Parts: sequence; structure tokens; C-alpha cells
Amino acid sequence: MADAFLAVDWGTTNRRVYLIEQGRIVRTERDDLGVTAVTDFDAAVGDIRARFGDLPMLLAGMVGSNIGWRLAPYVPAPAGIANLAANLLRIDARTAIVPGVSTLAGNRPDVMRGEEVQLLGAVATGLAPAQALLVQPGTHCKWATMIDGRIAGFTTAMTGELFALLRSHGLLAAQLQGEVTPNAAFLAGVEEAKRRDLAASLFGIRAAKMLGTRDDGDAAAYASGLLIGGDVAARLDASPHAVAHILSGPELGALYAAAIEANDRSAMLVDSHAAFIAGIIAIESQLQ
Amino acid sequence: MADAFLAVDWGTTNRRVYLIEQGRIVRTERDDLGVTAVTDFDAAVGDIRARFGDLPMLLAGMVGSNIGWRLAPYVPAPAGIANLAANLLRIDARTAIVPGVSTLAGNRPDVMRGEEVQLLGAVATGLAPAQALLVQPGTHCKWATMIDGRIAGFTTAMTGELFALLRSHGLLAAQLQGEVTPNAAFLAGVEEAKRRDLAASLFGIRAAKMLGTRDDGDAAAYASGLLIGGDVAARLDASPHAVAHILSGPELGALYAAAIEANDRSAMLVDSHAAFIAGIIAIESQLQ
Repeated sequence: MADAFLAVDWGTTNRRVYLIEQGRIVRTERDDLGVTAVTDFDAAVGDIRARFGDLPMLLAGMVGSNIGWRLAPYVPAPAGIANLAANLLRIDARTAIVPGVSTLAGNRPDVMRGEEVQLLGAVATGLAPAQALLVQPGTHCKWATMIDGRIAGFTTAMTGELFALLRSHGLLAAQLQGEVTPNAAFLAGVEEAKRRDLAASLFGIRAAKMLGTRDDGDAAAYASGLLIGGDVAARLDASPHAVAHILSGPELGALYAAAIEANDRSAMLVDSHAAFIAGIIAIESQLQ
Repeated sequence: MADAFLAVDWGTTNRRVYLIEQGRIVRTERDDLGVTAVTDFDAAVGDIRARFGDLPMLLAGMVGSNIGWRLAPYVPAPAGIANLAANLLRIDARTAIVPGVSTLAGNRPDVMRGEEVQLLGAVATGLAPAQALLVQPGTHCKWATMIDGRIAGFTTAMTGELFALLRSHGLLAAQLQGEVTPNAAFLAGVEEAKRRDLAASLFGIRAAKMLGTRDDGDAAAYASGLLIGGDVAARLDASPHAVAHILSGPELGALYAAAIEANDRSAMLVDSHAAFIAGIIAIESQLQ
């Protein structure tokens, strides 16, 4: 384990660099140089070392995809810290990319790249138990079942992307410009979502406007409740866990927590930033 | 009942005019003068009479909506021919608009405007039985339960619109440009759709590409199977009918028929054009 190293959480549209010394963050910076904004990764990595120190570097996220620097092949689930550490894509003696994780379980292929560090870190640092259901809300919401501290299986839902599509285009867009909070309209959407009938529930938003059965200012919250509620209902139906641990910022976290509680389970918010750091330190600690 | 009258099926983006004499279509024309392309409806109706004859006229569809000529208030379900005929919006002594139908059943508001004529006509002319499940595939797919020849209840699903959104925008758009036929990939999508977990099933299309588990040329058919299959599964779960009658053109009709059969029910295609004519004649025959 190095006394000091650099960790880079490098996504599609932004990245965050951490300087870690003796297991603690000494310095961090976020910018919008996501992988789609970078063409010369050697130069970009050189720039990072020039600014943060000439240190070993571990990279995670879309930097290891076919739109990133080099392709780090997926590690099949179940996958733990040791599996990721053993399958790093080595760029050179002190630069490596953490692989993503794949699954073919239940006849539904799925992939993640970047989220695995957070998930494993949440367990490694004790923010979540070794047997747990973890959720990472967002454009493509990830749900992972952890067994013995490893990612045993996972499901990605296009929950956030569907909401963004509906808000930007098509019949409902004009109705969906309002604020989204975990209010009564949101919870009504979560309740309707238990029908698991999204395409019909969505048209109900239009019909409610035509018939005047709901204040149209509540349509966005209701639609968000439909989408998040559908995601939550499907995942909880398939999970025995009484608690879902949410890795998320507070706004989206509050929506997922409300939907989880409306589906008769408990929700616990976990610091996703701390989880990433714990994960990347755990991986680094296994290296020679 | 008039010896001759004009029927206009006047939608958002196009319209079809029929000259009907002694219960038969003598002449018909379709154009793109939907309600959004017309500002002076008096003049537009005058033009129709100048071309087709100075006759009584029955109009149906979005012409009776708040984006049309005048608002014809919805008739609540259950609604039959007599209910529609009794609630026509009279413009003048020989010009009237057929109202749409609404429902608040099962805590899900829903509306239709234009489809009701086809549905009631299908039963009136014997193309479908008086107790039946009817489906009108499309951008906003309508499913109606007919009891004693009336529209007892109905559900609209944004099936076609969701497919169009996904095909035009977002993560999956580039993958969804291929042809859609009721092939093996379509049926695999229908099977996956039985999980009633659309947002997650859709991400599987992306993951299948990343993992190479499906020929990407099949992605569009699979996605269509997911959407149509989800619509079909939700509706058939709630219906005791062994047969679903499809009012549709042949391409979309074949997709719905395949999905219905994959959900262990029978499908029967009904001529939607003939159904509209039968419906409008049945309504007209009740007028003084």
C-alpha cells in the first residue's frame, strides 16, 4: 500500500481527482473534463500528476470504457474488492484502471462501470452491512445485492433517463416542468406505480389534466413518483431485505427514501462520496 | 335517418371525409387538414359541403377538443351509441360533433376522443361481440372493455409514444433504428415484458450491446416487444376475455397479435375503417 496515491473518478461528463495520503483525502478537485471532453489521455493524466504530485494513480469509471482511455474488460459478478484488484487494467507500473462489473443473471444482461467502487466501499467502510440491498439513484439507477461484502447481482433501471425524456419531449413535456419533492402527489404516483403498468399510468397524467382531477402543478411530482415508484416496487418485490441503503445526494435520496418507505421497507442514506474513497483505498491496499 | 350525410373523422394531423348514402360509402377522401392546420372551422366545413354536397354532417375526433372547433364534453363510461347520440354537440340544425368518452374507474382517469366511434361501430356491425376486449394500437394505445355493446371501461397506454421517444432521443436511440417485425427478437422482448419492469428491461438493451449477447440489429424489434408486450401483459392480466379484437392496420396489428398470443390469448383483426363507418351510421340513425 502506497503512502500516497491519486484516485480519479472519471465519468462521461465530469471527473473528480483525489490526493490520498495515509488513507485520508488531502486534496480533491472536480471539473468537467469527462472522457468525452478528452482526446489525449496520456497528456491529461500527465497534467493531473503535474498538479497533484507524481504519484501512483488508480482510475475508475467510464475512463475504462470504449469511449474512454482503454477498455478494462468487465469482471463478472459476484465481484468483490479482491476481484477488482486482481483484474485492474495496467497502463504502466503505477497507473491502472479499475474494471466494471457485468452480470447475465436472470436472463437479463447488465453492466456497471464506476458504481462498483462506491458499492464495495460502502460495505468495506461499514456504511452498509455485508449482506445488503444498495441503490444508486440517477439517470441509470443501479440496485446491487451485496452478499458477503461482494456485488452478488445488480439491476440497472433507466428511471432518470425516462423522466428526462418525458420532460423534454412529447405529450407530457409541458405538464412536467414543475418542482419535484416527496409530497402527496409524488406519493400518489408511487402508489399508482405498484400496478407496474408505466405506459398506462403515464397517460393518466394527460387524462387528469383533461378531466381536472389533479392540480397540474403537481404533475411533475406525480410523474417522478410513477417512475421512481415503479423502479422501487420492482426491485423490492425481488429482494428480501428490510432496509435499502441509498448512495445519493440528498434531493434524489429523499425521493427514493419516500418511495421505499411507501413500499413498506426502510431506507438509509449513505455518504456516496465517502463510499467511493473507502472503495478505492481498499482496492489500492491490495496492490503490491 | 337521413338518406345521405357527411361523416368526418377529424384528428389532430389529418382528417377523412365520407359521403354516405343509404348506409353505404359513396365517396371518401383523406387529407392533412387536421385540427392543428385549421383556424376557420366554419369555412373549412363550408368547403367540405361545397365539394361533397350540401348535406347534414357528423364530425368525430379532436375537432371536438379544446384544440379543435368547439369543445364537446366527454360522456362518462359506460357509454353506448345512444349516449353519444344524446350528447352530440350541436353546431347548427344539421352539423354536430360526437363527444369523447371519459372514465375515472379504478382511480385512474382516462379519456378518448374519436376512438369511441370505431369501438361502438365494431360491435354495432358485428365485427366484435357485445362482450369483448378491443384494442386500438398506436401512439396512445386504447383498450376497451365492451359490455352489452357499450364501452364499459378503457385504458390508454403511451406505448407508441414511448417507443418513438426512445428511438429519437437518449441512450438507446442509435440502437433502435432497425426494422420491427414480429420475429424472435420481438417475442423475446414480449417475454421479458412479463416482468412488468420496463425501465430495467430497457437498460438491458444497452447491456446486451456492451456484452454482445444479442445481435444489435435486433434491438429495435426487442424494444418494440418490450413496450407492446408490457402493454398487452398489463391489460390481459386485468381481463377475463380469451380473445382480444384488434382495430388496426396490418403491421401494428401483427405485432399486437403476436404479443397477445404469446400471453396465451387469441387475437382477431377487425377492419377499423369499416368499424368507424358502422359507428357513425349507427349514431346518425338515432337522430331526428
